[in-house]
Amino acid sequence: MGEKTVIVLHSGDMDKVYSALIIGNGALAMGMEASIYFTFWGLIRLKKGELERGPLSRMNMLGLSRLMVKQRMDRANVASLERLMSDFKELGGKIIACEMTMEIMGIKKEELRTEWIDEWGAVGSYIQEAGDANVTLFI
Amino acid sequence: MGEKTVIVLHSGDMDKVYSALIIGNGALAMGMEASIYFTFWGLIRLKKGELERGPLSRMNMLGLSRLMVKQRMDRANVASLERLMSDFKELGGKIIACEMTMEIMGIKKEELRTEWIDEWGAVGSYIQEAGDANVTLFI
Amino acid sequence: MGEKTVIVLHSGDMDKVYSALIIGNGALAMGMEASIYFTFWGLIRLKKGELERGPLSRMNMLGLSRLMVKQRMDRANVASLERLMSDFKELGGKIIACEMTMEIMGIKKEELRTEWIDEWGAVGSYIQEAGDANVTLFI
Repeated sequence: MGEKTVIVLHSGDMDKVYSALIIGNGALAMGMEASIYFTFWGLIRLKKGELERGPLSRMNMLGLSRLMVKQRMDRANVASLERLMSDFKELGGKIIACEMTMEIMGIKKEELRTEWIDEWGAVGSYIQEAGDANVTLFI
Repeated sequence: MGEKTVIVLHSGDMDKVYSALIIGNGALAMGMEASIYFTFWGLIRLKKGELERGPLSRMNMLGLSRLMVKQRMDRANVASLERLMSDFKELGGKIIACEMTMEIMGIKKEELRTEWIDEWGAVGSYIQEAGDANVTLFI
Repeated sequence: MGEKTVIVLHSGDMDKVYSALIIGNGALAMGMEASIYFTFWGLIRLKKGELERGPLSRMNMLGLSRLMVKQRMDRANVASLERLMSDFKELGGKIIACEMTMEIMGIKKEELRTEWIDEWGAVGSYIQEAGDANVTLFI
């Protein structure tokens, strides 16, 4: 069993992208490997200008808007998604972009933040990553 | 540690049923075992005529309707859910139907696609499946 | 590999809180350890008076309201969330409350059901729990 965390990020909701990156960075900080496979609505967050634009899973719940959550996160010293992503890359995290989603959604490589992407893959790439991981999550 | 992928499919959203079956089939294609435990809204998709009828997790996001996603999936050569399910069964995948959900939702066995179902189970069946799996996901 | 189930409960939806506690209790009943890390909308369910108040993931789907689901669960002899939680604690389950969420949402310790909480933690606590688990789920 490898010391590895492998996350499928299917959701593009802001709070779930936060969870994926916080867990990924936590794993890296504790000496594990970490990979995130961006697919479906998650992949859209890899488009230029889209990382910070996801809706909340529970928009309006508690009367919190996306902006208010961001302000509160700032005050609680939680890094921005942009910052969490660059930390993730610097710590050696691996980003896989789902090619099937690109085809379904009509997304071209040049529309994506290619500087973040380590691999263009399909489900086989995911299974290969996850097969020897000890923490596997679908977010 | 067995070479096995075990998925809880709690959601009945079309995009999430796709993810569950694509990951399940990917695991089987790479020589792993795979089981999917259908529960809550996921179980409803096992009712006759319901597999292809789930809503999208993000209906209207990007202006995509369920039909448009299906058309794009066709064009991207992604198999239908019906086809993915029959591939899953042919490759030796295991389907477990949650009996507690049946009782809560008032669903009878004869309303379900029994030809797909290998086992009628409860949480104990799931834990037994998952206990020796190396990939565990909740979708 | 330890015999342990570790769940991140990110959602506060009633049906997902049920799933987390039913799986947690199932794991404990079969002799495994079990931990649930309550974060984001899940953490709100640990506030006094909030455990049973989450919305359904698919409110109105099938015309089911939260109350109707509860009535059906009663009839199907499914325990209340309050009861599932006290069973979870009695069987030795561990509850971790996410401090980052408390800060973001402005939640104070005294607003939470502290009698349930074994640990106040951050992502590092989660990774430590999950690193030697064999079942890891994000709900």
